[in-house]
Amino acid sequence: MPLLFSKNLFLDCVKLLPGFLYRFVTRKRQLYKDLYNLLGFAPGNFSLYEVALSHRSSKEKFLESNERLEYLGDAILGAIIGDYLFRKYPYKTEGYLTEMRSKIVNRQQLNEIAIKMGLRKLTIYDKYNSFLKISQIFGNTLEALVGAVYLDKGYNRTKQFVYKRIIIPYIDLEMLESVEMNHKNKLYGWANKNGKTLEFELLEEQMDNGRRIFTVGAVVDGELICSGKAFNKKDASQIAAQQAIDLLGLGEDK
Amino acid sequence: MPLLFSKNLFLDCVKLLPGFLYRFVTRKRQLYKDLYNLLGFAPGNFSLYEVALSHRSSKEKFLESNERLEYLGDAILGAIIGDYLFRKYPYKTEGYLTEMRSKIVNRQQLNEIAIKMGLRKLTIYDKYNSFLKISQIFGNTLEALVGAVYLDKGYNRTKQFVYKRIIIPYIDLEMLESVEMNHKNKLYGWANKNGKTLEFELLEEQMDNGRRIFTVGAVVDGELICSGKAFNKKDASQIAAQQAIDLLGLGEDK
Repeated sequence: MPLLFSKNLFLDCVKLLPGFLYRFVTRKRQLYKDLYNLLGFAPGNFSLYEVALSHRSSKEKFLESNERLEYLGDAILGAIIGDYLFRKYPYKTEGYLTEMRSKIVNRQQLNEIAIKMGLRKLTIYDKYNSFLKISQIFGNTLEALVGAVYLDKGYNRTKQFVYKRIIIPYIDLEMLESVEMNHKNKLYGWANKNGKTLEFELLEEQMDNGRRIFTVGAVVDGELICSGKAFNKKDASQIAAQQAIDLLGLGEDK
Repeated sequence: MPLLFSKNLFLDCVKLLPGFLYRFVTRKRQLYKDLYNLLGFAPGNFSLYEVALSHRSSKEKFLESNERLEYLGDAILGAIIGDYLFRKYPYKTEGYLTEMRSKIVNRQQLNEIAIKMGLRKLTIYDKYNSFLKISQIFGNTLEALVGAVYLDKGYNRTKQFVYKRIIIPYIDLEMLESVEMNHKNKLYGWANKNGKTLEFELLEEQMDNGRRIFTVGAVVDGELICSGKAFNKKDASQIAAQQAIDLLGLGEDK
């Protein structure tokens, strides 16, 4: 233990520096620059960002891993995207807004954005683990980064960061809106091509706080393969179709 | 339509007043006072709060209903509670924090808090619908109220409001922590009393981004009744036990 302490003493002391001084520490200079470019502002609490970039597989054991920050960032990102959509679509229902939000913050979408932002290069993880390379840990890094910005700079600066560096450059709302309509079409296309019959069937209608909830199932060749719930039948069948697409592994096909 | 407009002309004009002037409008004076007591500050944009209090069953059709604000408030509340727990428990894992958060923001808990805050009296809804009276629409009002405070006063004031008026008076974290441990005990108690055998069985072990996910099932008299997923077996079996309790309707018993 004393050995470990003395070995890391320099780095422990370095952690106490205010963010802007990191540009003078040789070992950290490059990361400082990369962070500056990524964030668009100078990091205040530098070690927060180091934690945000550290996957649990990282070999640098003196760093905490980013899972707690990921939890925090996930909640903050949900609020910021929620607020953004609320203002962007003043005449849309809460069902529409909820669906759009889940399209934006879904794992795959966030992972793609993270890679485009260059977080694959900056994430500290076990690079010999080829499974991790193709998994979605970079989306988690992005969430952790949002958590770090929030702790470092507060909500309003985080909102600006998310708008300027995530939403505006990477989120194509028109495309996401049209995605909604295409799950059923895509599944019908697959069914036609493969000589299957496809039907959507109303399975259940419940009351919840005075609102009706519909459960619609996707039925392929007479067999129920999955179902979706929503406040109207159209959305419920879209959700069922989306699930079927995931289940059948059609996500990447046309 | 012109009749409707002239009928509501007075109220339409009233909507344009700054919040503090509402104390001089006889019809609104009581609501203004109630809101002041509830929020702990003078409402800025009064009509936002009127919308937040309006359930879709409300007969006052010229008011929007609170569902969009509920969507927004739900996201903001998630972020604020997420932040609160992150700071409160610096040494707990993200799994623990996520679980605690979902215990706090679950529908039933929010509804109980809303009723204690007096939102049953303030919510504008169809009071002849006896189903609504016992349903959980007041928790939705509380979320919508958080959304209204956020739009009216911004994130930091909303955080103060949530801390002072929701978390401190109504959320007993110690009790919620102990709830976690009691699902399995409760279910074992029920099984003993009713001469049933209860076992928890590991059903599946998957890898997700390098973390193991365990699926544990609750098995009563040899029959699998439900299952839970988590990053460790203990949490997974607790989740399974909780689901079983809901399923068997034991929630209200000792």
